[in-house]
Amino acid sequence: MQKNKISVVTGVAGTIGSNLANALIKLGHIVYGIDDFSLGKRKNLDLLKKNKKFKLIKCDVSNYKQLKKNIFLKKKINYLWLLAANSDIQAGIRDRNVDLVKTFMTTKISLDFFSKYLFKNSKIIFSSSSAVYGNIKKKINENIKLFNPISNYGEAKLLSEIYLDDFSKKKKFEYLIIRFPNVVGPPLTHGVIYDFCNKILNQKYLKVLGNGSQKKPYVYVHELISCMIFLSKKKTKYKIYLCGPNDKGVEVRKIANEVVRIFKSKKKIIYGKTSYGWKGDVPNYNYNVSRLNKEGFKFKQSSLQAVQEAIRQNKLSLLNEKN
Amino acid sequence: MQKNKISVVTGVAGTIGSNLANALIKLGHIVYGIDDFSLGKRKNLDLLKKNKKFKLIKCDVSNYKQLKKNIFLKKKINYLWLLAANSDIQAGIRDRNVDLVKTFMTTKISLDFFSKYLFKNSKIIFSSSSAVYGNIKKKINENIKLFNPISNYGEAKLLSEIYLDDFSKKKKFEYLIIRFPNVVGPPLTHGVIYDFCNKILNQKYLKVLGNGSQKKPYVYVHELISCMIFLSKKKTKYKIYLCGPNDKGVEVRKIANEVVRIFKSKKKIIYGKTSYGWKGDVPNYNYNVSRLNKEGFKFKQSSLQAVQEAIRQNKLSLLNEKN
Repeated sequence: MQKNKISVVTGVAGTIGSNLANALIKLGHIVYGIDDFSLGKRKNLDLLKKNKKFKLIKCDVSNYKQLKKNIFLKKKINYLWLLAANSDIQAGIRDRNVDLVKTFMTTKISLDFFSKYLFKNSKIIFSSSSAVYGNIKKKINENIKLFNPISNYGEAKLLSEIYLDDFSKKKKFEYLIIRFPNVVGPPLTHGVIYDFCNKILNQKYLKVLGNGSQKKPYVYVHELISCMIFLSKKKTKYKIYLCGPNDKGVEVRKIANEVVRIFKSKKKIIYGKTSYGWKGDVPNYNYNVSRLNKEGFKFKQSSLQAVQEAIRQNKLSLLNEKN
Repeated sequence: MQKNKISVVTGVAGTIGSNLANALIKLGHIVYGIDDFSLGKRKNLDLLKKNKKFKLIKCDVSNYKQLKKNIFLKKKINYLWLLAANSDIQAGIRDRNVDLVKTFMTTKISLDFFSKYLFKNSKIIFSSSSAVYGNIKKKINENIKLFNPISNYGEAKLLSEIYLDDFSKKKKFEYLIIRFPNVVGPPLTHGVIYDFCNKILNQKYLKVLGNGSQKKPYVYVHELISCMIFLSKKKTKYKIYLCGPNDKGVEVRKIANEVVRIFKSKKKIIYGKTSYGWKGDVPNYNYNVSRLNKEGFKFKQSSLQAVQEAIRQNKLSLLNEKN
């Protein structure tokens, strides 16, 4: 069924993009992967590049002219995976234009450009984020319509969703918005686990940003990709899905302890005083994933298991680098 | 009826903003005018500032923190007029961030911030532009849903419309989008008449950008404001209105001739070769304003009359400056 389907993946050299491209190729897709390598890494594509079904195009998808100049497809697209985004949320807080361009315009311009390659049965899959909600006291679900993003990243993801919805309604395309929690797993390039592992190897103490009480759900990248592909193949009831495990998440304190344990380190953990890790951080959120579960997908790994596996994998790759 | 209504006008120091504030005050409104003076001019507010019903707040409305710091209203707003935008379309073509911030984010952040001051009967009036359509062969009307803006300004106005629509639906606010054609009249700060008048006074020739065949509708600012106020007070049938006179517009060639005639100049007019004036210019468009007319408003001045009056007024103010 999925053989020779055409997938386009923007942001293909990122953690999620490269793993997704791999999974799609295993399914039999022909994958056009696009990245400008401003954040994505070439080495993430080392294996993929040897595969005939993978075509890499270097291009900044926030730039219409570059797309027009570099991209000529012979066939229409079955799946358009919009993953290109700023992944450094803190950089986006220092300079708002980062997320306006790298998170929002990458989505908008990709849609504008690729619309000529889409047809009635194509599906657009957009990787959104729990950051669109911002600081919300109650348990997050897809029916909440009041958003209060506190990072420019969250704001740009929300704008992207609005644009995608409007665009697809006007042009009558099918789309799917998947709102991710924290995604962990190889290759880690940023985030709490990346940070802690580096500190445990290279610094005197494991210094935690914030008091450690921040508590969020986590998914391991491979299971996230199973979820994305599951939803993309289905005629889903809704257009928006939260995804993640059915638990209350893991405290940052617990992650720090796990890093110490898995690295068999004796270094001391030092905590900050704020309830949040950094400006724009959403310290606590809690997902209701029953909509996803009702579609027939349940995450097997808990948040804690995802975190543990990511630490173990990251330890391996850090030790490999050293040798 | 309109006495002591509260109006907020963003971009109040621009040509349209300052004239609108004047008109609202004559109606009896209390007007909070906001501008960061990056494009708006202080002298446009000289008369207004003497009026007790006018309160000027210096603030960049694309900056949420600045709004939060500077704006405290005692009462809710009856009319929120969103006029703040980049007015230098060519600057926006050189650098996309100009329109993302000055045209789009000014709208978005104003909505986000002022939503706490809005109530069920408030009205949001957004000044949009014919530039959202871009190069469209047929006569423009409000039912066209395929947009192809060719300037970043047009794109940012379109994004603003999409955001406003989404925002208002979610929060259940009333809104009105008015798509302007070329607006002329005092105080002119840019545009074809401004340019030609300066050239006729200060340069050897009147050099026209493009071959002079560009043909567009024009409105005189005072009549535009009558139209905006007319629509704002009505319970309109639709949310989007094109506004302008019921004619096919004026050719740039004709404007050049009129400038020469009104200035009683003997300077030669020199034409370029392109069919457009500058990159991002929409050389020809043609409005269908029957939706506006059916609501009961008709522009009395033709495009040509608006152009002529703007040239005469600009001549007067240029000669005044010289003396």
